[in-house]
Amino acid sequence: MANLSASLASTADDVITCKAAVAYEPNKPLTLEEIHVAPPEPSEVRIKITNGAICQTDLYYLKGKDADKIFPRIFGHEGAGVVESVGSDIKNLKRGDKVIPAWMAECKKCPKCLRGKSNICDTLVYNWSNGFMPSDKKTTRFSKASNGMPINHFFGTSTFSQYTVCDEACVAKINPEADLSKVCLLGCGVPTGIGSAWNIAKVTPGSSVAVFGLGTIGLSVVEGAKVAGASMIIGIDRDDHKLKQGLEWGLTDTLNTCGLAKPIEAIIKEMTDDQGVDFSFDCTGNPGVIYSAMECANPAGGVAVILGLMDSSKEISFHPSKLLWGKSWTSGLFGGFKGRSQLPDLVDKCVEGVINLDHYITHKMPFSEINKAVELLEKGECLRCVMDYDR
Amino acid sequence: MANLSASLASTADDVITCKAAVAYEPNKPLTLEEIHVAPPEPSEVRIKITNGAICQTDLYYLKGKDADKIFPRIFGHEGAGVVESVGSDIKNLKRGDKVIPAWMAECKKCPKCLRGKSNICDTLVYNWSNGFMPSDKKTTRFSKASNGMPINHFFGTSTFSQYTVCDEACVAKINPEADLSKVCLLGCGVPTGIGSAWNIAKVTPGSSVAVFGLGTIGLSVVEGAKVAGASMIIGIDRDDHKLKQGLEWGLTDTLNTCGLAKPIEAIIKEMTDDQGVDFSFDCTGNPGVIYSAMECANPAGGVAVILGLMDSSKEISFHPSKLLWGKSWTSGLFGGFKGRSQLPDLVDKCVEGVINLDHYITHKMPFSEINKAVELLEKGECLRCVMDYDR
Repeated sequence: MANLSASLASTADDVITCKAAVAYEPNKPLTLEEIHVAPPEPSEVRIKITNGAICQTDLYYLKGKDADKIFPRIFGHEGAGVVESVGSDIKNLKRGDKVIPAWMAECKKCPKCLRGKSNICDTLVYNWSNGFMPSDKKTTRFSKASNGMPINHFFGTSTFSQYTVCDEACVAKINPEADLSKVCLLGCGVPTGIGSAWNIAKVTPGSSVAVFGLGTIGLSVVEGAKVAGASMIIGIDRDDHKLKQGLEWGLTDTLNTCGLAKPIEAIIKEMTDDQGVDFSFDCTGNPGVIYSAMECANPAGGVAVILGLMDSSKEISFHPSKLLWGKSWTSGLFGGFKGRSQLPDLVDKCVEGVINLDHYITHKMPFSEINKAVELLEKGECLRCVMDYDR
Repeated sequence: MANLSASLASTADDVITCKAAVAYEPNKPLTLEEIHVAPPEPSEVRIKITNGAICQTDLYYLKGKDADKIFPRIFGHEGAGVVESVGSDIKNLKRGDKVIPAWMAECKKCPKCLRGKSNICDTLVYNWSNGFMPSDKKTTRFSKASNGMPINHFFGTSTFSQYTVCDEACVAKINPEADLSKVCLLGCGVPTGIGSAWNIAKVTPGSSVAVFGLGTIGLSVVEGAKVAGASMIIGIDRDDHKLKQGLEWGLTDTLNTCGLAKPIEAIIKEMTDDQGVDFSFDCTGNPGVIYSAMECANPAGGVAVILGLMDSSKEISFHPSKLLWGKSWTSGLFGGFKGRSQLPDLVDKCVEGVINLDHYITHKMPFSEINKAVELLEKGECLRCVMDYDR
């Protein structure tokens, strides 16, 4: 961390020139180039990103699958770093604090935050479809070093840059003992899975769970269910390697869906003494699988959670009698965790060893090779590739 | 009650001859005639019904809309009475006890009851599509007095008879001070609405609620929401009379959907500071209304409850993004109340005056005029018509 301290001392309050991976148009490789990062405005925080990873949602936007298609833009929402400087209104963060940029914003002031019934915040809603900073809703802190062209922010985080600026609502201050090269994963995928088990489904000790799709999200649901005390955790996938891998995360049973003679829900029913599972999770986004996952949940009070992102052109059809015995169908973002007030507790659980982040890290790479990391994730060849931003 | 005591003394353990309203085929008036009611088997209870009402579900089956179409049958599942005799295994009920026949069976022994995560019981599941007694699954206790032809039971209750036999799982022992001519309504409709607010949606103090359809179920949702402390209760209907009537139950706002210039969900959003309601309830069974009710719930953690029975030939289509901010879509039977262990508490709340049953009783009639009562309900001209079974 010697280099970091040196850079902190020299850059506070100035425009910083650093490397970022800029997306200029959909479906093209990211351009690694020098950008300028302006100092933070009063409610903002400038962060030196030390480590980060890539999540499927980055790919979704990078491919221009969203309605807004905002470019040029700096993507990235799974990272960690150290506060470099803070705006004049910031009271609870200071230079040197370890932080996670939290796309799941929590301003603690809007009607949604004050209502407290979910983790949704108006700042998140703004960031969802805009590339400007939420403080003024019209400027960016990023510009291209060579010609000053403004570059848009992404989800309030933009971690594909050595330095980023976040609104205070999007910065979670974490345990100083946390290893940033590991907890950077808590920016998105792992909390989404763990929290879906803990906060959304509320998995109970001794319960039965079915997880459809064993990528990073699915595996972290398995981990969350295991920590919550589920006694039966069934993993469902088409890939034997993923099913075998899932055993290390806590699966008690596996089911490969290739060439099944019966519908999945009939098999799950047999595996659960004719009851169905207490909790089911779709982590595929496939409409047929989402429906099956709902069917597999116990009709008498089971909970089915949708986590996979489904193609926006499709729909799911069902008859309400499917829910008549008290089944619930629900979903959620970031596992229901509030970015600033709850993410730090999850970091503590990693420091304490309750949650194991090591097994999600299948690859490591210098930040300069980010396009290779994108390719790995696209091909499904990695869970998480952690990048070192000093290289 | 002098007559009742006299009849109790003379009928125990014998076959009883009494009047019942028998359905011989779909869509025909009920036949009021003499039937024989056999003594209860070991796990059964014979009950003298003193009062009862008719619920829309009776009409659904009476019209042969269900898949099973079991006839001849004695319908009725909203009634109250007094235990006349008990089978040899019955320990907790005795002759003279006031009871409500509970179609929401609770055997306390099956895997569903032992799991405890819902109010569904295997005895209910059996009764749902069979006309025999659950104890042997092959006989009935009813027969036609003139020729001995067996007559099927309905939902474990068959309250359209002066005497009925219920499995112990289907008998709720209630407060001896309860007025049977009122608490007979706790057999179905009123608990379904109240419990949907209390147990399924879990309405919280200060919350906002939308109720679609203001029949008996909708009004009892309003009552449940009011008792739970909701501060805004919006009633939605096409009938100004029903909307006005709902104000007496606790509505704070009304919305007539006839000739609206904007979608209902847009209006509800405006009425709730752009948030949507915390809890929405469909009590219509109309697919379009069920969807609107879901849309009206706050995307950030709102709960949408489906109570209306929808035509089995139709489906609802939706995109999971509707639930992405943590909204839940759910349903339930009998308001989530367990028949034997929770219905008695609700009776107590009526005795204490927390719940007002009087305003649901728009008509009274002798049991002998049951076909007139059916007609009133079919025409939508009554909420509940309470019948006196001694007349």
